[in-house]
Amino acid sequence: MPSQVNVGLIGYAFMGRAHSFGYLNAGLFYNCDCMPVMKAICGRSEDAVKVAARRYGWQSYETDWKKLIKRDDIEMIDVSTPGNQHATMAIAAAQAGKHVFSEKPMANSLDDAKKMVAAVEKAGVKHMVGFNYRTVPAIALAKRLIDEGRIGTVYHWRAQYLQDWILDPEFPLIWRLQKKVCGSGALGDLAAHLIDTARMLIGEIDTVTATQETFIKERPLEAGAATLEGLVGRGKSAQKGKVDVDDGVIILSRFKNGALGTFEATRFSGGHKNYNFFEINGSKGSLRFQFEDMNVLEFWSADDPAYAQGFRKILATQSDHKHFGAYWPPGHIIGYGETFINEVAEFMDALAKNRMPVPSFVDGMKCCAVLDAITKSCKSGKWEKVPKV
Amino acid sequence: MPSQVNVGLIGYAFMGRAHSFGYLNAGLFYNCDCMPVMKAICGRSEDAVKVAARRYGWQSYETDWKKLIKRDDIEMIDVSTPGNQHATMAIAAAQAGKHVFSEKPMANSLDDAKKMVAAVEKAGVKHMVGFNYRTVPAIALAKRLIDEGRIGTVYHWRAQYLQDWILDPEFPLIWRLQKKVCGSGALGDLAAHLIDTARMLIGEIDTVTATQETFIKERPLEAGAATLEGLVGRGKSAQKGKVDVDDGVIILSRFKNGALGTFEATRFSGGHKNYNFFEINGSKGSLRFQFEDMNVLEFWSADDPAYAQGFRKILATQSDHKHFGAYWPPGHIIGYGETFINEVAEFMDALAKNRMPVPSFVDGMKCCAVLDAITKSCKSGKWEKVPKV
Amino acid sequence: MPSQVNVGLIGYAFMGRAHSFGYLNAGLFYNCDCMPVMKAICGRSEDAVKVAARRYGWQSYETDWKKLIKRDDIEMIDVSTPGNQHATMAIAAAQAGKHVFSEKPMANSLDDAKKMVAAVEKAGVKHMVGFNYRTVPAIALAKRLIDEGRIGTVYHWRAQYLQDWILDPEFPLIWRLQKKVCGSGALGDLAAHLIDTARMLIGEIDTVTATQETFIKERPLEAGAATLEGLVGRGKSAQKGKVDVDDGVIILSRFKNGALGTFEATRFSGGHKNYNFFEINGSKGSLRFQFEDMNVLEFWSADDPAYAQGFRKILATQSDHKHFGAYWPPGHIIGYGETFINEVAEFMDALAKNRMPVPSFVDGMKCCAVLDAITKSCKSGKWEKVPKV
Amino acid sequence: MPSQVNVGLIGYAFMGRAHSFGYLNAGLFYNCDCMPVMKAICGRSEDAVKVAARRYGWQSYETDWKKLIKRDDIEMIDVSTPGNQHATMAIAAAQAGKHVFSEKPMANSLDDAKKMVAAVEKAGVKHMVGFNYRTVPAIALAKRLIDEGRIGTVYHWRAQYLQDWILDPEFPLIWRLQKKVCGSGALGDLAAHLIDTARMLIGEIDTVTATQETFIKERPLEAGAATLEGLVGRGKSAQKGKVDVDDGVIILSRFKNGALGTFEATRFSGGHKNYNFFEINGSKGSLRFQFEDMNVLEFWSADDPAYAQGFRKILATQSDHKHFGAYWPPGHIIGYGETFINEVAEFMDALAKNRMPVPSFVDGMKCCAVLDAITKSCKSGKWEKVPKV
Repeated sequence: MPSQVNVGLIGYAFMGRAHSFGYLNAGLFYNCDCMPVMKAICGRSEDAVKVAARRYGWQSYETDWKKLIKRDDIEMIDVSTPGNQHATMAIAAAQAGKHVFSEKPMANSLDDAKKMVAAVEKAGVKHMVGFNYRTVPAIALAKRLIDEGRIGTVYHWRAQYLQDWILDPEFPLIWRLQKKVCGSGALGDLAAHLIDTARMLIGEIDTVTATQETFIKERPLEAGAATLEGLVGRGKSAQKGKVDVDDGVIILSRFKNGALGTFEATRFSGGHKNYNFFEINGSKGSLRFQFEDMNVLEFWSADDPAYAQGFRKILATQSDHKHFGAYWPPGHIIGYGETFINEVAEFMDALAKNRMPVPSFVDGMKCCAVLDAITKSCKSGKWEKVPKV
Repeated sequence: MPSQVNVGLIGYAFMGRAHSFGYLNAGLFYNCDCMPVMKAICGRSEDAVKVAARRYGWQSYETDWKKLIKRDDIEMIDVSTPGNQHATMAIAAAQAGKHVFSEKPMANSLDDAKKMVAAVEKAGVKHMVGFNYRTVPAIALAKRLIDEGRIGTVYHWRAQYLQDWILDPEFPLIWRLQKKVCGSGALGDLAAHLIDTARMLIGEIDTVTATQETFIKERPLEAGAATLEGLVGRGKSAQKGKVDVDDGVIILSRFKNGALGTFEATRFSGGHKNYNFFEINGSKGSLRFQFEDMNVLEFWSADDPAYAQGFRKILATQSDHKHFGAYWPPGHIIGYGETFINEVAEFMDALAKNRMPVPSFVDGMKCCAVLDAITKSCKSGKWEKVPKV
Repeated sequence: MPSQVNVGLIGYAFMGRAHSFGYLNAGLFYNCDCMPVMKAICGRSEDAVKVAARRYGWQSYETDWKKLIKRDDIEMIDVSTPGNQHATMAIAAAQAGKHVFSEKPMANSLDDAKKMVAAVEKAGVKHMVGFNYRTVPAIALAKRLIDEGRIGTVYHWRAQYLQDWILDPEFPLIWRLQKKVCGSGALGDLAAHLIDTARMLIGEIDTVTATQETFIKERPLEAGAATLEGLVGRGKSAQKGKVDVDDGVIILSRFKNGALGTFEATRFSGGHKNYNFFEINGSKGSLRFQFEDMNVLEFWSADDPAYAQGFRKILATQSDHKHFGAYWPPGHIIGYGETFINEVAEFMDALAKNRMPVPSFVDGMKCCAVLDAITKSCKSGKWEKVPKV
Repeated sequence: MPSQVNVGLIGYAFMGRAHSFGYLNAGLFYNCDCMPVMKAICGRSEDAVKVAARRYGWQSYETDWKKLIKRDDIEMIDVSTPGNQHATMAIAAAQAGKHVFSEKPMANSLDDAKKMVAAVEKAGVKHMVGFNYRTVPAIALAKRLIDEGRIGTVYHWRAQYLQDWILDPEFPLIWRLQKKVCGSGALGDLAAHLIDTARMLIGEIDTVTATQETFIKERPLEAGAATLEGLVGRGKSAQKGKVDVDDGVIILSRFKNGALGTFEATRFSGGHKNYNFFEINGSKGSLRFQFEDMNVLEFWSADDPAYAQGFRKILATQSDHKHFGAYWPPGHIIGYGETFINEVAEFMDALAKNRMPVPSFVDGMKCCAVLDAITKSCKSGKWEKVPKV
């Protein structure tokens, strides 16, 4: 029989539901040596969190996160709140001796991120940051092909994370558009994912230059009560407020290994909903990925005979594709939700084997260091070095 | 608080796990007025079914399906076994007054299908057949666009269901290749889905002509014990046995409304894993779908200005896309598994509203009537009329 | 210095212009050992043919094709007229000792096709039929990969030729919709190309079953004078006439080598303009092609490692890709017109080397034999054997 | 009868052949009011230029470009040589009163470009620069949709020009890799095209920041004699020389109208042959283009109903698509070569109508101004303003 870990989750909205889905299904697909027990979910609105507990399958609920962290029957805390609360909650959880799983971006400042790492390391707990795209089978396959040397020396990285959900100027000023809550706009929400993927596949970024823009300067304020439903659960008022985060950001980079990189993240790219794209060009091969068709990795190999070369559209749905094998027969694709099942499976496996989950808070912090350099460059107009952390 | 229904599931392999996933997650995504309670799972191997119960979240298990059906605490039976058992089990369940959810093809013969319909109608229970592709949001969107008149008069239906998992002649003779168990090969397994989608979108088929082939005539026998894992859980022996089902089948049809149709189903189409494709051409528009990129529906409209016409690649992931709205923000795609959550949500909604779920056993039977005509045509070499049922 | 051949072309409309483009440019791209001399073009309307001669680069013109054939300075006749004139003109040309290049379908009946073959063989002249798609580099690459054994035993052929130019019921009754001129509709115009490609890549077809439909039974008659411009050079009158050819045809086939085949040709497939598509599935590989993106061949190989298999999108624009090498650097794609340059280059090369061009009238006749069997099956409703020719 | 202009072409290699193809075929497709007469072609190697004259259809040849320009029977000079000769030749031609058509980039320095503009303006001749991609029908369609207001306010421009022909370190040091001949590498050869397209579609660029890299620092020297054939007509020697141009360049920009832009040009992007890509995102619509499938423009419109929005794949091959209508029926795609026919048609039309062709030397100069700012930024590491010209 597998061992168990009692989980307490803070947050019940978009990420709260996604993480609940992960805990609920980890055992169905993975033969886990450590099983998550869905002990308690926590949120400020009792009405909403009560419903969430019942529908998501949590045994109990709390409305005060500090109380949740103190509960003796909780061994692991999942921080699925907006970015401005990550540091406080994660540090408190670590200090209480709980394992911690934090959503991304790990913190709204590099300083906070450093403190989080210090806290979990001091406490000796396991820690993981929610860069869920690492568990997309096609991205894991990219990693495998790179590690096998099939791409050779990397020359180019180009990445774009394109969405369009705030293209309408009447879309309200939700927390994801308020700097004091979310820290930044497309940068922390979207570019952070690209940076993590780049670090995973290519290596560390050395220097960056960037610029950003807020295309719509004012938006209607939000109005109405919290609900479980999705990104935009509330209505909007007649009053307007200032948007103080970036709608879009564009970035050039140089990697430590000599590769050139471009990054773009925007919520103003009409027609793209969750277009998380990257391409890698190396001396022996190239790779392409795009999330809206997330089961596919495109691979070009210079090893094929010249007259028969071309990008191969690999459907990463074989039993030997990491992060897919646990699911269905080939071609029976998985979706966004399954990345959260995979994250939970990774954390459970790490607990069972007493190893650190990947990506850890250290990865979260290194991503924050790159975000920090980008923000600096947007102001200075110059190339900025990524701080050593 | 929602009402509840106690479910007993027969089968723990590929379909058993898929259906369990459906029951486990229906409440997380759907605000169900009737909630499934995962009462008991049933399978012949006690070792395997015991593990399945624990991992999939069932409260108890049985090894004798007759006993399961007799249990007073079970109100609904889910038949997720090979086709040769559907009729016996579903009829017994209906006679015991249980609602019935049967996998597809509903029966291995039209006669059996008719008996199943008679039984459920006599018992007055709710019944549904597992054509899960009906709940793919992109296919539901196709239905919507057709119902809105955006395609006009339909001229052409072309559909292909392409897989390649038995391309290797050394792949063993599993039950899906044995006529006495599965009834037919690609025909009942794959073409049945295409026929159901065609019926849903275009209407009834009038006549068919077809031919089929078994490319590999003999295969190694299976060996080893049952496991939970996937399609090919067992090893193979040195001995060979005869393959008596079709590896591939090709079909022409005429629909009652005058449209021409082509169907192809094969497990010998290298490079295609679960390529469930259809295209519809009408007087005002066209539609294209392919399961391996299942969140996409392509739509061409003659209403666009001539110089700006083209197939639109619609990502059916908006909140107002049927069967998607319950999940994630736009672009955060769903996968194959979610179709089973959608099926359970449909059955639960039907129970809550005391209406018949869609597709019902009548749809299952009508599909069997088309399969019957195709099988006849493969022998006669002539156009055969689809029997009236 | 290369030798020369004096060409006389009959026809100045769509095909006449396309062939003129071929003669005009063969020398620019190909280092021909025999160069075409554009001696004379022939058409019934003197006004139009005079303009055509000047604009297309012909040294002279004729209005009587019999006179053209008799001219001593003409060594080769190009028959680019509607199908009902091919036999008469080609036979007369052969009897006059001229080499003959005939557009496809070679004849409106198998009988006529046989007579044409008899005539050219008796005369000992070179002959070629205008299946220009054979010279698409991506299709030539398909042939190469098949010949290299990379596909293995062929199991499936599926082909579709989809257009939509007569979807509008008010499109006039041009000659391509009149049986006495064109012989058949989508069958001879479009399916003929698919059949030729199938013969080139897979081999001979043994038996067929088929059905066809005329969706729009009556159309406005044509009105107005001939012009050079495209497919629909004339206006339409208020009067209507009967459409007596097929708008669409669907076909099942069995090849002599055991493969199953499906064919579809239609002018009622909205959104497809010149969608000439085929796919081949074999024991070791698969191939896909579609003309609207004609420089691409998709190739799936079972030889790639299982986890890295996928359809490769090969851009057939390398210098070692047959029928492309004469043009541009890689990636600088060619279009439809270039297939006619390639055809002329093939004929010139055959003349220089005193060999028969490919495809010859014998190929044209064999295609007519398949068309003949399809037409029979459309009437009989049964499988028909392709006549031996 | 149309008027005529006598053309003299300098250059017989890649661009020389491409331009010859343009002159040879303009009349076949376009009903030109002014017809080009292929008077003389000029090149330094008499052996090669003699063959070129015969094969491309030129009436005579020269080996001294100064002599060509002096010929009284020449009215228009086409400069299809490497960039370092453009200024000298074009200025001499203008001074001799000839119309001038120069390949791009117009000059290797902004200073030279300014002198060229001054010369042609002083001489009062017609002038055009060879940004042939402007005549791709899909790009012209993009312009039309933008002009119609279907994109709204532009927020994002992203463009990549990806090739891979020098990925092999053993590829020789041809003139396109020598700064003294070509001025720059991917920047002038590829990015110049992107910049021109951006200017055509979005407007003027205000500021840029950029960086570039030479991945392979040394390459084998070229050896052997000139031939007509393609990009790499010669062999290579055992000796190596230094590569002093950029292999790849990445650029951020801000447009005068407030849009953000990214550009990338590289010859080290394995698997891409002539991947000239751009995407535009505006407040009401988006556009995407990629040259390897050059007949397609993707268009997303916010005007479509929300549930039916998606990128439309428009095949720009209708008779009312600018730069296509002269060719074939819909779906019968054109290729790279046809852009040169379109360029000639544009120049001829301008001569007939006594208007300036588009794009003129002024456009060529403005592109050089952007290249100049990029080069500066690659050195300074800062944002640089595009010089006013």
